[in-house]
Amino acid sequence: MAAQGVDALLLSLGADLPWLTGYEAMPLERLTMLVLPVDGEATLVIPRLEAARVVQDPDAFALRPWGELESPVDVVADLVGARTNLAISDRSWATFLLDLQKSLPKAHWQQASRVTSPIRVVKDDAEIAALIAASAAIDRVAAQLHAGDIKLIGRTEADVSAEFGHRIVAEGHEKTNFAIVASGPNAASCHHHASDRVIQANEVVLCDFGGTMAGYCSDITRCVYTGEPPAEFTDLYSILVASNAAGVASGTLGTPCQEVDRASRKVIADAGYGDYFIHRTGHGIGMEEHEDPYMVEGNVTPLAHGHAYSVEPGMYFDGKWGMRLEDIVIATNEGPMLLNHTKRELVVVEA
Amino acid sequence: MAAQGVDALLLSLGADLPWLTGYEAMPLERLTMLVLPVDGEATLVIPRLEAARVVQDPDAFALRPWGELESPVDVVADLVGARTNLAISDRSWATFLLDLQKSLPKAHWQQASRVTSPIRVVKDDAEIAALIAASAAIDRVAAQLHAGDIKLIGRTEADVSAEFGHRIVAEGHEKTNFAIVASGPNAASCHHHASDRVIQANEVVLCDFGGTMAGYCSDITRCVYTGEPPAEFTDLYSILVASNAAGVASGTLGTPCQEVDRASRKVIADAGYGDYFIHRTGHGIGMEEHEDPYMVEGNVTPLAHGHAYSVEPGMYFDGKWGMRLEDIVIATNEGPMLLNHTKRELVVVEA
Repeated sequence: MAAQGVDALLLSLGADLPWLTGYEAMPLERLTMLVLPVDGEATLVIPRLEAARVVQDPDAFALRPWGELESPVDVVADLVGARTNLAISDRSWATFLLDLQKSLPKAHWQQASRVTSPIRVVKDDAEIAALIAASAAIDRVAAQLHAGDIKLIGRTEADVSAEFGHRIVAEGHEKTNFAIVASGPNAASCHHHASDRVIQANEVVLCDFGGTMAGYCSDITRCVYTGEPPAEFTDLYSILVASNAAGVASGTLGTPCQEVDRASRKVIADAGYGDYFIHRTGHGIGMEEHEDPYMVEGNVTPLAHGHAYSVEPGMYFDGKWGMRLEDIVIATNEGPMLLNHTKRELVVVEA
Repeated sequence: MAAQGVDALLLSLGADLPWLTGYEAMPLERLTMLVLPVDGEATLVIPRLEAARVVQDPDAFALRPWGELESPVDVVADLVGARTNLAISDRSWATFLLDLQKSLPKAHWQQASRVTSPIRVVKDDAEIAALIAASAAIDRVAAQLHAGDIKLIGRTEADVSAEFGHRIVAEGHEKTNFAIVASGPNAASCHHHASDRVIQANEVVLCDFGGTMAGYCSDITRCVYTGEPPAEFTDLYSILVASNAAGVASGTLGTPCQEVDRASRKVIADAGYGDYFIHRTGHGIGMEEHEDPYMVEGNVTPLAHGHAYSVEPGMYFDGKWGMRLEDIVIATNEGPMLLNHTKRELVVVEA
């Protein structure tokens, strides 16, 4: 905070608060906010009726419950006092920032991630262990998909997505974060959710799913084919496998993040399909599904031991089909460590 | 917008955007934002890889997909142009507001809810029908609880909460929003979630759960007792039932919202337990679980036909037990319309 010229951090929604304190704010109209001054004691401002949920640690922060007829913005402003360089959680609601700006007209504001991201981006040993465990759990679900345990043909995408959700929790996650099931032409829409479309025989089913386990996220994408795939598809898919492998292999210490993107992209572009790879290669992962560091052109941050991120090249052919292959990787002193071990080659699932 | 002096609405996360357009922004680091000027055409700024999810309606808005190497904040700022009185979604992430404030240094900002809430708070016939349907669906789950279909004794709160989640979806919701299961002393914490505590015989189990169905929310609280309740508890519970009924009955057109709170509170205070009712009586409900109008001291908004809200008095006794009884009500020309019909009296569930 001192290096960034920040007098006080104001942490609310998002991962900064649970990462620092173990307590996660509820996404509600009643404000929860940790006021953490560079020069004083931290205070958690919290709705009185949620105060009982907090495991207190007086060495870490004081508790300031506010009652239903108080203004929590006034409470925060009082705690901020004369400090003017403030940093607020990136995911705080705009309504609270606007009210705080009105209450603290002399303040200068910036994103809390300026302070927290450079620290959070480097996972320590316990965090690496948590990411490994979450990836192992999601691998078990992916293996169930490959084994044909999850029936596909004749069911709606939404129905299959709900089953993924149950399996993700059954394998040890405390919650499912998303379960994209995109079949046939729907696989051409990268952020397609699950629809009422009934999955057919002889088409691709793209499954991208993840959850949170002991506070840390998993995220994997595997494609299966509901019948013998045409040669055109298997040819494209082998390009995808090579692109994924090139991205993973490029993740050595000191490599700028954009080089991971370039490594994956080059394989697809060299094969003549660059225009069909329409997104960045990856995102960081930790307590949030998407966080720093991003594997994207323009990000010159050098990879360091403990950086955790996805490598997920894809190709999308409008109205026809699409494919994506995603693994989580941690950059380490011993080279890139793959966290997912589920078979990467295209699997035929005729269930 | 003209009446509020707003030149442009900037809508991102939250219910304003789907309420206006049918499209809901994803809560991701890639910005989705509808730029809706008072004097021009609306434009939905959206990540290119999510554009395929939008059902386009050129009469309603143009689409401006942005590529992975563009700055969406710059795109929004360009569309805003010289307009200076801007209103942003209350639930937009602070990080985007800060970046927009940097790009548009002359702008004055306020909450979009200043414009949208007075409109959204009055539910039209289709919205009322959707709320009735969602409440009927959650009533079916509550009836299953009362019937003993959901086994309680010997299971963890978390396990029971997960079962509520499945049943909420099975009864027609597209998603579960929350399922609080608070047993024994945990029922004294109003926003307790579900823990690893194993539910015992002869204690209260407070269940507060809801979901979203066809875009509109349900929300209900019922308490059951896992054995014959002591007279002390049933006496308290009959006060609670009377408090709930008084709050519901008070909701006639023109009544200030705070009078609903006062009506529920008076019953509990008159019985000598005012200090144990530590929260407001209710919240509005619609596309969001909590929205205007709030039934809270200080809110003098008069109830109008189409206002939908919860009436949920509670009493909480630290370390011992707690209770809450919640129903959804719509103020109508014919008087307060109760949307929940599950039995309100305390039910013994010995399963």
